[in-house]
Amino acid sequence: MTKLPDTVRLEGGCLEIIDQTLLPGQIKILRLRTKEEIYYAIRQLKVRGAPAIGVAAAIGVYLAALDIKVNNFEDFYDRFLLAKIYLNSARPTAVNLSWALDRMEKCLLNNSENPVDEILNSLKNEALAIWTEDIEVCKKIGENGLQILEKNSGILTHCNAGQLAAVRYGTATAPIYRGHELGYNFKIFADETRPLLQGSRLTAFELDAAGIDVTLICDNMASAVMRQGKIQAVLTGCDRVAANGDTANKIGTSGVAILAKYYNIPFYICAPSSTIDLGSRSGADIKIEERDSLEVTEMWFHERMAPEGISVYNPAFDVTDAELISGIITEFGIVKAPYAQNLPAMIAG
Amino acid sequence: MTKLPDTVRLEGGCLEIIDQTLLPGQIKILRLRTKEEIYYAIRQLKVRGAPAIGVAAAIGVYLAALDIKVNNFEDFYDRFLLAKIYLNSARPTAVNLSWALDRMEKCLLNNSENPVDEILNSLKNEALAIWTEDIEVCKKIGENGLQILEKNSGILTHCNAGQLAAVRYGTATAPIYRGHELGYNFKIFADETRPLLQGSRLTAFELDAAGIDVTLICDNMASAVMRQGKIQAVLTGCDRVAANGDTANKIGTSGVAILAKYYNIPFYICAPSSTIDLGSRSGADIKIEERDSLEVTEMWFHERMAPEGISVYNPAFDVTDAELISGIITEFGIVKAPYAQNLPAMIAG
Repeated sequence: MTKLPDTVRLEGGCLEIIDQTLLPGQIKILRLRTKEEIYYAIRQLKVRGAPAIGVAAAIGVYLAALDIKVNNFEDFYDRFLLAKIYLNSARPTAVNLSWALDRMEKCLLNNSENPVDEILNSLKNEALAIWTEDIEVCKKIGENGLQILEKNSGILTHCNAGQLAAVRYGTATAPIYRGHELGYNFKIFADETRPLLQGSRLTAFELDAAGIDVTLICDNMASAVMRQGKIQAVLTGCDRVAANGDTANKIGTSGVAILAKYYNIPFYICAPSSTIDLGSRSGADIKIEERDSLEVTEMWFHERMAPEGISVYNPAFDVTDAELISGIITEFGIVKAPYAQNLPAMIAG
Repeated sequence: MTKLPDTVRLEGGCLEIIDQTLLPGQIKILRLRTKEEIYYAIRQLKVRGAPAIGVAAAIGVYLAALDIKVNNFEDFYDRFLLAKIYLNSARPTAVNLSWALDRMEKCLLNNSENPVDEILNSLKNEALAIWTEDIEVCKKIGENGLQILEKNSGILTHCNAGQLAAVRYGTATAPIYRGHELGYNFKIFADETRPLLQGSRLTAFELDAAGIDVTLICDNMASAVMRQGKIQAVLTGCDRVAANGDTANKIGTSGVAILAKYYNIPFYICAPSSTIDLGSRSGADIKIEERDSLEVTEMWFHERMAPEGISVYNPAFDVTDAELISGIITEFGIVKAPYAQNLPAMIAG
């Protein structure tokens, strides 16, 4: 494992995060106290990755609840809901955000008969439980993922579904870290992942820091490395799995899945079960966040790289058809097609 | 058409080019006189694109010949060959470079009985003929390409096979420019094309300057726009077509072709017949240029975007399997599979 601190944690009455917009040049810890600070940290991708923003929002809504200075339950609940809706609006695609906030609300409602200070204590414990479970769940994804990987494999990953996308271990990186401990000698290829370069700035950074063999490529080089026989498996994370297995993840994931199919390479999604949203019937039900064109034309660059006024389409996510997915690696095991049948069965336990 | 000057031309005893590394921010004309200046302009991509570097090299070797101050044919030819080999080594993948230089050498040999000043005159005329033919060939590719395009189509293109990759009109853009004149109302999607961003810096720039509807996307967004039904055809250029139809073009092209196949979208290569290299039996025979890792990690950026010392794989081209190519649009018409049979037939006329 890297020697990086946990990506997200509750410490001294603050949400502590690593500011991921400054990586890899600078490792800076931010201490966030207000819901506005936490909203903007999520919105501006200072903390990102589906599991991590779920945990950050759970801690965030607890910290927001601390600021509600009323003793009447109805008023307290009203203001809690406002904070919840506000934090939930920070980003639309990852289901973990609303999943964690819903869980915090349920905790509050289960304590509706208790005085506010006891409610606050329960909310704190629930946020810490979500935090602890994230670590445990990622650890299990690592163990389960290792079942389908062979020693000395080349593994391609897209975006960052790493430690920096969760509290610890990551999702897609969990089998990589576990395999590294066991001497699996993986060779990782990290797509740089335009426009925000989470692959080069985060994935290459954290794997390299952990002493893992990682090679950075541009997104459009994945086909070439697959064609050369360098890739035996693709592992990515995801932001939302619909009931039929269609999966939303970072823009470009669907393209990687199509390439993998063409080259007969297994393509696996790594995700906590909290990412599975049976309320979305298919990919068509998933709202895809579109982001500012400046991310494509100006951000990171020392000068503008496209003509002034040019049209830009900048979706942050895409949907991978279920038929392209070899399996979804969760903490409970690996779910395979038919997803419409096997996903609800897995959730039901 | 754009109001851009021709990309490459012989003017006042110099090779005049637009410095493409400064686009889109600055339109600067370079006047190159020595073979060293011309070598580095090609090497550093100040002039790039398979047809354009062929024309630039033809003019370049003529200018180099002007500097040979001997009157004896054998000595003249020796020094010409040195200049030819030197210019040919600037970039390995595009066949047009060696094709144009071979043609210049053949012209010289056809004039071996003539005095040096007549040889020089013949070389000048040959370079100008290559220049003129490039314009005519691109124009015909435009007419031929229009046969397979419908009005109001969405067209995806990768890298820059535009006016800026040839003398005028371009290859993949030739049908787009011609369709624009005829009111075809195309909607173009330009892949930005990492690492050197020829799509945003050059293709989006030149199409926008010509008043054509163009939308810039990152390379990894092509699958999403195809999935949304926005693309009816893919047009790209190429650097070398092998005898079996395997085609080398800018890195990422093979991935786009695989996506097009998955989404049932026709994928066409636009190329002058001079790009067809029957001497390469298949893609395996084509040398793929690898370039500096700094293009991926630092170039264009205001700070380094990947950890220090990280491994980077940066191939400049990839090979698209012949089976993925719906047709190769040349000045003589559209060549389809079986390529091993139809390409030699087309070359033989």
